[in-house]
Amino acid sequence: MNPEEQIDRLNLKLPPVPRAGGIYHPVVIAGKLLFVSGQAPCREDGTFITGKVGKDLTVDEAKEAACQTGLTMLATLKHEIGSLNKIKRLIKTFGMVNCTLDFSKHPAVINGFCELMVEVFGEEYGKGVRSAVGMILPGQVAVEIEAIFELY
Amino acid sequence: MNPEEQIDRLNLKLPPVPRAGGIYHPVVIAGKLLFVSGQAPCREDGTFITGKVGKDLTVDEAKEAACQTGLTMLATLKHEIGSLNKIKRLIKTFGMVNCTLDFSKHPAVINGFCELMVEVFGEEYGKGVRSAVGMILPGQVAVEIEAIFELY
Amino acid sequence: MNPEEQIDRLNLKLPPVPRAGGIYHPVVIAGKLLFVSGQAPCREDGTFITGKVGKDLTVDEAKEAACQTGLTMLATLKHEIGSLNKIKRLIKTFGMVNCTLDFSKHPAVINGFCELMVEVFGEEYGKGVRSAVGMILPGQVAVEIEAIFELY
Repeated sequence: MNPEEQIDRLNLKLPPVPRAGGIYHPVVIAGKLLFVSGQAPCREDGTFITGKVGKDLTVDEAKEAACQTGLTMLATLKHEIGSLNKIKRLIKTFGMVNCTLDFSKHPAVINGFCELMVEVFGEEYGKGVRSAVGMILPGQVAVEIEAIFELY
Repeated sequence: MNPEEQIDRLNLKLPPVPRAGGIYHPVVIAGKLLFVSGQAPCREDGTFITGKVGKDLTVDEAKEAACQTGLTMLATLKHEIGSLNKIKRLIKTFGMVNCTLDFSKHPAVINGFCELMVEVFGEEYGKGVRSAVGMILPGQVAVEIEAIFELY
Repeated sequence: MNPEEQIDRLNLKLPPVPRAGGIYHPVVIAGKLLFVSGQAPCREDGTFITGKVGKDLTVDEAKEAACQTGLTMLATLKHEIGSLNKIKRLIKTFGMVNCTLDFSKHPAVINGFCELMVEVFGEEYGKGVRSAVGMILPGQVAVEIEAIFELY
């Protein structure tokens, strides 16, 4: 699997890399582990997809936001390390959904991110471990996802 | 400490391994680190313990759910890596409680998981670092716990 | 950068090390990775800063609580490993804010922790990756933060 070729082949459009909204690095590498800061769904125009899932957004709309969060993460990774081909695999995803108190379909939402990762990094290495849960997110973005990858 | 012998000695009943409810691996290993996906409290009949803690479940009931989440995690680990004796220690637990907005006793709930880990992996290696916090969980399960272990 | 000297130079007052409120270790080391349990804002008198941010606390008050959480973490680290000079860098922060459902300024709150880390560990190594999100916290503490550091 060649992630950079996959992005071209699938004609994926990466959004602009968001400016850091606080005092942190977008990416930190320790040994073979690459840690990524929580990413939000950045549109191509630089704005974010916001709203409470289960009230302002449907599951399908939130799943699209999770996919857009994945594209934002790929843009951030590419900007920080130069080439996605340095990444061996996804290890871990923590998928956070900004949702109503009775919302239940977090897995279906976060699948939008996970399907993208499988398309780019392949069936085995594009899947990591995962939690998909609900909370209150900064700027009321619809989805925020942090991840750990393994480098070659 | 021999975790497999402990499970026999304590006569622990592991629930069936839940089917993946999304696009992820139950376990990913990177170097000596073993990452586990968020586990929910699966009963022996395959159903999950659900409800908002502080309203639908008492602290004691939720603590039992956290213990059942631990049994579910042990079942998942055993299924994925064959023997729990490959595990040296628990490194980190992230304990998530599906609770009311004014609930405060997350540590008492997650202790249900931690007591089980100490029984199976011992006083030193059965304890990891921990956060025990409240959020909105998928399928309204009462508890969800993810963890990192260290392999021998 | 010499973190111990920085603490003296900045005249930082570390609070007492909180007693473990459950079955866990404050710190676990695996290879060069140091994991810290979720820390809460402990005052010098041993009590915790509590309340819902966005209702009981303003953003500025919550930012101070995040700074106090950082001081609590430094106290815990010093107690557990003897000297902060064994730490090379901050890798990852997970910043949790106990907030109202419509709160949005989690990054501004968690910056209180991050500014302290930069003062102690320096501009490059005092910054890690980060998520700053909202949930329901144990004992209704205002802020809870867990982290991963890299050792020399």
